[in-house]
Amino acid sequence: MALVVHKYGGTSVADAERIRSVADYIGRARRRGDDVVVAVSAMGKTTDELERLASDVSTSRPGREMDLLLSSGERISMALLTMALTDIGVPAVSFTGSQAGIITDTAHQRARILDIKGDRVREALAEGRVVVVAGFQGVSLAKDVTTLGRGGTDTTAVALAASLGADLCEMYTDVSGVFSADPRVVPAARRIPHLSWEELLEMCAAGCPKPDVRAAEFARTHQVRMEIRSSFTWEPGTRVGPEEEVMEQAIVSAVVHEVGEAKITVTGVADRVGVAGSLFTALAEHDVNVDMIVQNVSTDGRTDISFTVPSRDLAVALETSRSLQDDIGATSVIGDADIAKVSVIGAGMKTNPGVAATVFSTMAAERANIEMISTSPIRISVVVRQDDAERSVIALHRAFGLG
Amino acid sequence: MALVVHKYGGTSVADAERIRSVADYIGRARRRGDDVVVAVSAMGKTTDELERLASDVSTSRPGREMDLLLSSGERISMALLTMALTDIGVPAVSFTGSQAGIITDTAHQRARILDIKGDRVREALAEGRVVVVAGFQGVSLAKDVTTLGRGGTDTTAVALAASLGADLCEMYTDVSGVFSADPRVVPAARRIPHLSWEELLEMCAAGCPKPDVRAAEFARTHQVRMEIRSSFTWEPGTRVGPEEEVMEQAIVSAVVHEVGEAKITVTGVADRVGVAGSLFTALAEHDVNVDMIVQNVSTDGRTDISFTVPSRDLAVALETSRSLQDDIGATSVIGDADIAKVSVIGAGMKTNPGVAATVFSTMAAERANIEMISTSPIRISVVVRQDDAERSVIALHRAFGLG
Amino acid sequence: MALVVHKYGGTSVADAERIRSVADYIGRARRRGDDVVVAVSAMGKTTDELERLASDVSTSRPGREMDLLLSSGERISMALLTMALTDIGVPAVSFTGSQAGIITDTAHQRARILDIKGDRVREALAEGRVVVVAGFQGVSLAKDVTTLGRGGTDTTAVALAASLGADLCEMYTDVSGVFSADPRVVPAARRIPHLSWEELLEMCAAGCPKPDVRAAEFARTHQVRMEIRSSFTWEPGTRVGPEEEVMEQAIVSAVVHEVGEAKITVTGVADRVGVAGSLFTALAEHDVNVDMIVQNVSTDGRTDISFTVPSRDLAVALETSRSLQDDIGATSVIGDADIAKVSVIGAGMKTNPGVAATVFSTMAAERANIEMISTSPIRISVVVRQDDAERSVIALHRAFGLG
Amino acid sequence: MALVVHKYGGTSVADAERIRSVADYIGRARRRGDDVVVAVSAMGKTTDELERLASDVSTSRPGREMDLLLSSGERISMALLTMALTDIGVPAVSFTGSQAGIITDTAHQRARILDIKGDRVREALAEGRVVVVAGFQGVSLAKDVTTLGRGGTDTTAVALAASLGADLCEMYTDVSGVFSADPRVVPAARRIPHLSWEELLEMCAAGCPKPDVRAAEFARTHQVRMEIRSSFTWEPGTRVGPEEEVMEQAIVSAVVHEVGEAKITVTGVADRVGVAGSLFTALAEHDVNVDMIVQNVSTDGRTDISFTVPSRDLAVALETSRSLQDDIGATSVIGDADIAKVSVIGAGMKTNPGVAATVFSTMAAERANIEMISTSPIRISVVVRQDDAERSVIALHRAFGLG
Repeated sequence: MALVVHKYGGTSVADAERIRSVADYIGRARRRGDDVVVAVSAMGKTTDELERLASDVSTSRPGREMDLLLSSGERISMALLTMALTDIGVPAVSFTGSQAGIITDTAHQRARILDIKGDRVREALAEGRVVVVAGFQGVSLAKDVTTLGRGGTDTTAVALAASLGADLCEMYTDVSGVFSADPRVVPAARRIPHLSWEELLEMCAAGCPKPDVRAAEFARTHQVRMEIRSSFTWEPGTRVGPEEEVMEQAIVSAVVHEVGEAKITVTGVADRVGVAGSLFTALAEHDVNVDMIVQNVSTDGRTDISFTVPSRDLAVALETSRSLQDDIGATSVIGDADIAKVSVIGAGMKTNPGVAATVFSTMAAERANIEMISTSPIRISVVVRQDDAERSVIALHRAFGLG
Repeated sequence: MALVVHKYGGTSVADAERIRSVADYIGRARRRGDDVVVAVSAMGKTTDELERLASDVSTSRPGREMDLLLSSGERISMALLTMALTDIGVPAVSFTGSQAGIITDTAHQRARILDIKGDRVREALAEGRVVVVAGFQGVSLAKDVTTLGRGGTDTTAVALAASLGADLCEMYTDVSGVFSADPRVVPAARRIPHLSWEELLEMCAAGCPKPDVRAAEFARTHQVRMEIRSSFTWEPGTRVGPEEEVMEQAIVSAVVHEVGEAKITVTGVADRVGVAGSLFTALAEHDVNVDMIVQNVSTDGRTDISFTVPSRDLAVALETSRSLQDDIGATSVIGDADIAKVSVIGAGMKTNPGVAATVFSTMAAERANIEMISTSPIRISVVVRQDDAERSVIALHRAFGLG
Repeated sequence: MALVVHKYGGTSVADAERIRSVADYIGRARRRGDDVVVAVSAMGKTTDELERLASDVSTSRPGREMDLLLSSGERISMALLTMALTDIGVPAVSFTGSQAGIITDTAHQRARILDIKGDRVREALAEGRVVVVAGFQGVSLAKDVTTLGRGGTDTTAVALAASLGADLCEMYTDVSGVFSADPRVVPAARRIPHLSWEELLEMCAAGCPKPDVRAAEFARTHQVRMEIRSSFTWEPGTRVGPEEEVMEQAIVSAVVHEVGEAKITVTGVADRVGVAGSLFTALAEHDVNVDMIVQNVSTDGRTDISFTVPSRDLAVALETSRSLQDDIGATSVIGDADIAKVSVIGAGMKTNPGVAATVFSTMAAERANIEMISTSPIRISVVVRQDDAERSVIALHRAFGLG
Repeated sequence: MALVVHKYGGTSVADAERIRSVADYIGRARRRGDDVVVAVSAMGKTTDELERLASDVSTSRPGREMDLLLSSGERISMALLTMALTDIGVPAVSFTGSQAGIITDTAHQRARILDIKGDRVREALAEGRVVVVAGFQGVSLAKDVTTLGRGGTDTTAVALAASLGADLCEMYTDVSGVFSADPRVVPAARRIPHLSWEELLEMCAAGCPKPDVRAAEFARTHQVRMEIRSSFTWEPGTRVGPEEEVMEQAIVSAVVHEVGEAKITVTGVADRVGVAGSLFTALAEHDVNVDMIVQNVSTDGRTDISFTVPSRDLAVALETSRSLQDDIGATSVIGDADIAKVSVIGAGMKTNPGVAATVFSTMAAERANIEMISTSPIRISVVVRQDDAERSVIALHRAFGLG
């Protein structure tokens, strides 16, 4: 008798047929004896369509109204899934984010969960019901409806699992798990059966599309066991949990690449206290997410700073950096959108010092010039020319014996 | 400085372009000095689509979930319209039915408004805001979201107008007013500039499609002045108010016909107390809406009862009547779907005794056999063969000099 | 026994209910003895959605594929309407633009009709069928599907009417006719019962939204009688035909305004042959539609040229003009988006010399400064500040006794 | 340098994002040197929506118009995919079924392909283009557009592959291959790496949902190698080809079950020539697809015949059978919808005589009563109570060591 949180994404509930299929599957879990709480996304591309409508009627898009609007999609899928469950004889009840007690801060469209008062959820579970919670939404301290931003239903699911002390959080989506590389680039890529929380988090941060990185972080912090699974085939997926349980510990678990970033290099910066601080503070104030940062050793009291940002932020980041150019005494600010980031991730790296050497020699053999390097205990990321990225991924995947 | 309630139906807010157009129009009313409260329907056919989705996943369609589902459409249009208003500099705020204090009974999908606690609406008006209220919905005494049934936004609008003491309730829709007959049938039909509340109510009950009959009744009871107008052309429409204000009082204002009804005749019924009562009680218990009822004079202690019901209820009504056949001593129960109801309506009929005679002689000249007759002080309705209906409408429209 | 072409726009066939309603109406026309050819648009906003999908997958949007894509919407509505007609016992047949023999040039997305080989249409009419033709499309001399651009179904309808020698072309839409002014601005505006072809064309060119200006031009050239009507109320609309038939000839029929234009002024241009030619040739090459052009009298061999363009073309027009600034010896190029065009239109103006005086004195009384003037025999247009436009329209509508 | 046909189903091209993703993937195949022909379905649920619209406007649904309507969906996706390919620099051209030379018979909505005149396809391939063909449609000998029925794009793809002599037909869909059992029922079910054509055909006929059974039959007849793959993960899927290539030949490859069938038993039938013939001829004339048929040994010149039909045909099949009851001298006709069919499939069964024994003893151990049996050289199917089906599938999957 386990307590399991299921999360169903938009493609999993895209139409009536899929919703009935999900209800049937939840019914099976219930009959096997699981207590089930469901976090459900809006149907298909509903949220995108609502965003589009909002942009079509408004340039200002006021936060309170936006969140009232965007949260509608999950109310619809929540009600439909609950009706489908009831219809096949599975007692079920729906709760909006507010009714489920998901309390957030007041930052509309990117609210953070502060607390989950899950009393009504627990009561309904005790009555033997499946509880269907609208994902992606909560209620702010100011009593307004809020939404959690893109991928928010992943966060809802993991937060509910943590709050309820669930045994497992099953993330149902349109892919069958997490892969050792993008199968489009590396046809030999394999689904990874087990990952540690740290590995998943590093992979998400390195560009792996699912689940959402905030959910991965939440899962690691609160030690929520997850499984990434397909709601199309329902086959076993990728389990995520403590490192010690990951069997057949590989040195490297996956090679991940990301082409949606751009590099900015600020040259000849005065090498004095506070320079980097003022630069990155200004970027943060313009909502630019800086990823990798590299600073060279100073020569003659001057240094170069390179960093990467999402491509869509490149223009803002360049403008912001150039507006500070004089203040920080830089000689130039150069943008470069033609880059890619390639990352090698594996919990086994911690105890295997040769990984970096293998990465660099493999890249060298592919004549892929490394422009930036960033590491964590279980990750090595390099920035290369975009043209070199896929070749590097294929070579690294082979070099680490991943398939 | 008037307080005006605007109601916008689904086609009036069917897409982003229409929503912007409605916002622009509300902004004009505001600049002319009106205080404006808006009741808005779901976009286009959203409610139908949600109903369909519900039917596709569920045969039981539980009430609480249905109303959570169906009420989503108005949340979306409400948020979008409020955003569109804000975007063009018109201060506005949105309220769901619950936030607007629309209290209903607990009959899901056909709730009745019990009270409107309009405090938040009044406060927002006092702050100079346009108040956008989601139509079609309220909150029940059991704190659940309820919906008011088809045409519910009309009721929301009129109820808000009554509760707030509004000077006028403008019903914006896709037609430019109420016509003296269906222009498809009578090309010479004219838009009626003024109607009394009683006339409008009789017309709605006689088959005129807009506004919803419950709203017409609410308007009459609470003396809410209305205007039925087009949100496509924005031209002046049909004003509805006290009878004494209707200028150029015509004897007959309109000829309305309805083909969606069927007739049931129960013959040879025992002419004793309670027979009709038990029949119509049984029909009511099966949710059959009986419209006209005619009972012939008794012959030999036996009589015939004829009544009309909506065509879609014919099967149920026949079955119910037949199940009582023995109890009420009837010799037969006969259904007839091939009928039409033709009604002549006019406040001036009260003081013009010759109207009925004109109706009957006109029908006779058209060789249209009258099968049932029902009258009110301002209406004469007759049931004829469906084939005779449109010819009769044309002849009556001419006979009463309507065009 | 007349031959009538019906045109139904997108809102007229927006959903299944509307399509059935249109079929019912066509059936009535057929039963009254009319031969009916129908030109039908895509349902609702289908074309916009297809355009959006195209933009979402492609920046280049190749013409042949675009027209294959965009023409799908009318195939769908055409098939559905034909099925609805067949279903109620009205013999009908559908033809795509190609099957109807609508031959165009090869300019994808804005093709021009060169010829209509209506043999199959005539044969089907002779067999007693209603002919449903997909609007907005044809087949090019290169045998590719083409589309006629926005409002193309209006052109299809009028071209079919001309080619078939139809007695009337009825344009069904969501408005009930052409108005003497925008009723949002002038609540006293009236529907105009009759217009001459010339008046309608001037009104369309001056900013009146329906019908499409190309269709209005086609109708005038080929002397196609039209009626603009509502498919929501089906009431009589605005008839368009020869000037001599327009009864109760008013001096002025309508006041039309347009806010979607911008003004460009090129100052100090060298007053020599060919200067204006090179400027407007360059604008045409950049697909900028120039509307009004005014050139001042030369002073010292130098002059100013002002012209208006659609607001969306302002940036391109400014850039183009500035690139020629040196060549044409201009001292400055100034853009101004804050203008509006107000036009007074009436066939009676030709024989009433005082109209211009009334326009100018009315504007002066409103303190609306006139910045540009353009006239035709039956139209006077002036450019004013946007803030002055609506006040001017109201005053002019009153000054000419329009309501 | 292989010639590969790709097939993309509705979920694979459900929105602009997916279409761009598919285009990117095709571009990769092209860059690897493959010649690519694509058969593409309508986006998402487009075909269902068009069917629904048709039913909403028409009960008769005339064939020619239906196929004009239904074929629109593939025209849209075909044009969009071609535009997306062009946009990323991959030369591509689109062809409708008619343009691709897919000739069918005249049976609207379930046409059969008679011939593929692929000249234009071959020319375009020779020019180095990717050829995108609208799936599901062709042109009849009567020059009308036809559609191939549900799953028709699978048939289009396989028929194109056969006609062009393609090396492989890759079927991209939302599942990652064919499984040894439904993973919802048997969590240990595994994806099958290789299947023979015969096995796939038996599995499709036994209830496995993808690909379409007609396509499987076409592939076997024309020896078209296929691979069933996911367009969400792009991981390797299930390859289908000659039996001799299937490595690690298992005795049993899969256990398939089907709950959508019903059983009819006709008892006491006169045991004479022609009785069964007249019964099944009558059923065929009513478009009832009979699946399994079992006839008992005659007792006293009388016998019982049992057969299964799709549940949706049960009412028609019962009525048809009962109308013949007297003619064929039957004592009763009994319908039973509460059944399920369980099938065990494997090419290795041919040389392993003990499979049937294992099936029966496994079912017996589960106390699942076998009501009907049907076999082929590589399949054993049994009919059981619906309640016994899933338990039987689990037990059989284990008994044959499938996971």
